[in-house]
Amino acid sequence: MTTGLPMGADPADDRAAAAPSTEPSSTAGPLSHRRRWQLGVVQSMGPPELIDLVPGYLDPDLLPVDLLRGAYRDALAEFGSAALSYGDNQGAVEFREVMASLVSPACGPEHVLSTAGTSHALHLIATGLADPGDVVLVEQTGYDLGRGILADCGLRLREVPTDDDGLDPAALRSSVLEARSGGQRVAFVLVTPTFHNPTGRVMSLERRRELIAVAHHLGVLVVEDDAYADLGLTEPTLRPPTLLEMAGFTGVIALRTFSKTLGPGLRLGCMVAEQSLVQRLVSHGYFVSGGAPNHTTSLAITRLISDGDYHRHLEWLRTRLRTRRDALLGALRDGLGTDPVLRFTTPAGGYFLWAWSRGDHRETDLLAAAARAGVAVAEGSRFGTTSAPSARLAYSFNSPSRLADAGARLAEALTLEQNR
Amino acid sequence: MTTGLPMGADPADDRAAAAPSTEPSSTAGPLSHRRRWQLGVVQSMGPPELIDLVPGYLDPDLLPVDLLRGAYRDALAEFGSAALSYGDNQGAVEFREVMASLVSPACGPEHVLSTAGTSHALHLIATGLADPGDVVLVEQTGYDLGRGILADCGLRLREVPTDDDGLDPAALRSSVLEARSGGQRVAFVLVTPTFHNPTGRVMSLERRRELIAVAHHLGVLVVEDDAYADLGLTEPTLRPPTLLEMAGFTGVIALRTFSKTLGPGLRLGCMVAEQSLVQRLVSHGYFVSGGAPNHTTSLAITRLISDGDYHRHLEWLRTRLRTRRDALLGALRDGLGTDPVLRFTTPAGGYFLWAWSRGDHRETDLLAAAARAGVAVAEGSRFGTTSAPSARLAYSFNSPSRLADAGARLAEALTLEQNR
Repeated sequence: MTTGLPMGADPADDRAAAAPSTEPSSTAGPLSHRRRWQLGVVQSMGPPELIDLVPGYLDPDLLPVDLLRGAYRDALAEFGSAALSYGDNQGAVEFREVMASLVSPACGPEHVLSTAGTSHALHLIATGLADPGDVVLVEQTGYDLGRGILADCGLRLREVPTDDDGLDPAALRSSVLEARSGGQRVAFVLVTPTFHNPTGRVMSLERRRELIAVAHHLGVLVVEDDAYADLGLTEPTLRPPTLLEMAGFTGVIALRTFSKTLGPGLRLGCMVAEQSLVQRLVSHGYFVSGGAPNHTTSLAITRLISDGDYHRHLEWLRTRLRTRRDALLGALRDGLGTDPVLRFTTPAGGYFLWAWSRGDHRETDLLAAAARAGVAVAEGSRFGTTSAPSARLAYSFNSPSRLADAGARLAEALTLEQNR
Repeated sequence: MTTGLPMGADPADDRAAAAPSTEPSSTAGPLSHRRRWQLGVVQSMGPPELIDLVPGYLDPDLLPVDLLRGAYRDALAEFGSAALSYGDNQGAVEFREVMASLVSPACGPEHVLSTAGTSHALHLIATGLADPGDVVLVEQTGYDLGRGILADCGLRLREVPTDDDGLDPAALRSSVLEARSGGQRVAFVLVTPTFHNPTGRVMSLERRRELIAVAHHLGVLVVEDDAYADLGLTEPTLRPPTLLEMAGFTGVIALRTFSKTLGPGLRLGCMVAEQSLVQRLVSHGYFVSGGAPNHTTSLAITRLISDGDYHRHLEWLRTRLRTRRDALLGALRDGLGTDPVLRFTTPAGGYFLWAWSRGDHRETDLLAAAARAGVAVAEGSRFGTTSAPSARLAYSFNSPSRLADAGARLAEALTLEQNR
């Protein structure tokens, strides 16, 4: 068991950029509070000798410990014993109302089904709306851990080609027809149109329309992973409309989570869909027996949202993520010069910088250079088929100074290699 | 939407029997704190004109609101940002250690897998260790909502005959052989040996041994629902050994939950099993992606257990459940006289009194009499095949005075009917 501080912790950075005291306090508190950031408590920790750009985690310093402490206190004071009871199967109506307000003015509590996060939602969909052996269509390069859930539920994954604008609607069409002509049922297509993991991409409105049209025409359910919805960093794409809204709440299930904004340990999120689909999902014995999947916590988060604390926290968090993104990008750009071996676009939101190198390079070369630089990156092939040697660099988990350091070291290692 | 106080709320009762002030405060607080006990927040509420003995819920006055408020505060102070991070896939080791300590001295953290309660555990087992179409063997009369989960996962339920000591091992053997001779795979047998829902029964040690022997001999996995483990009310059966312990941690998955002792809204529990089975379950993409199913809350409960508060709360709770059980039983016995139309044995623990009437009676007669008495009871047939007209009466959800009232009214209605 490794003991120590999180790799990303460097309190000095955030002290420099601290929010005014009228904003909610969102630091992890004194160092003593972080003594438990160790294997056995948290899911994983990178090798201590590297700057770890692998995990899609929030920097421990950005997890709003004090805010959550107050939220549980207030929810238990307001709801009393009802906060500890079996919750309404679909989720407490107060929670569903605030979630609907986050989604769109056209969304109501009847469209919302509370979940214990996106992994839980995918597990429920994969086991409740699909049968083992069914085909699920996924983006050629996409959320690897989501794929793992679906595959482990016995579903057959088929990659659909993507381009710079995301999933290709014509390719979606032919993938569906091909599966069906082979006698296979297509359960759904999984897509992340906004602040995509791993590419950081935002799908254009035109592409969204085309995608919905094809899916509707073929009668294929769309599962829209909207985990990074609240983390737009750059105008004018702070908050693109969801496929769900554009499709008029028909044929789409959107997945929301608080794992990327408040804390994954909370295990809280929701599905948003047309009422008949919500009713079909909630009629499962799982909900009938246990009620809402994470009732007490959902009421704590309800308080945060209705009090405005969640939105104030988002403003604070976005500023810090923007600083982190720019620290990594700036150092890479400065270090790589005018004919860079590594290329990337500026992500408009989310956690990730997607970087790819020229075709004469191999992914292993990229990883080897990163290792020499003392930086851990996620290999592109982890996310499916890539069109060039590539890697995902998370700017969410480390302090700005460490990110700047990582960028400079990566650029240097790649440039040295190029000039050998 | 119905607004109002919970059916079971009668603060005067618990004021009379209040714990000394050195014990943790476990009442729901002032009435204003309970204004949210209403449909839309909680899972269900009985018709206000009846005394509701249907739900397997804890009386709202027995849900330890203040204790939980302190537990979240303390866990967030101690673990800081690690309490909000993705938790260790199997569950934080501190949580697994305290859970192991609740199970037996032979149990270690390696045997524990955290879950979001028993419904969640059954869903994970049904989808992870069984395939649709597999047979699951259940007690002839058993936990109906658990059956619902398994059936909705596509499993085929087969009832195994039970007697006064629970599941019949010889019948288990023939059920397994019959299913297999029909070419069907038996995924597991689901059994509740301790403080059984709905019958309140405790399986004898001899029967436990026989059951384990048959299951081991046939290679059938046993899923042991131990939801009421901590709620023994009467010596010497305060805490019978689990099938899991008696089987030497082989071939049994025991399910634990805090829904019956702290609050179902927490959605926290665990599975306990041999290491290889735990490893098989935790290797599913669901855990790999999201980590521990309810990490933040698990650390709050860890604090309660390690500080001794959970055990002090259990003492307090057991006293109150015993008072409630005895209030219902006493009123029924007094009212029914020496040749009672309704029969029952005193449950040694848990939430439920199982009552059955003579063979010339029908279940509908029993329900009709209850309705005339202004009391709602759960019809026995809800729980499978019963050997006599029967009903489950929960003594967990109402105050002692209401339970005494319900018992007297039920007895009167049944006696009147008998003498017509």
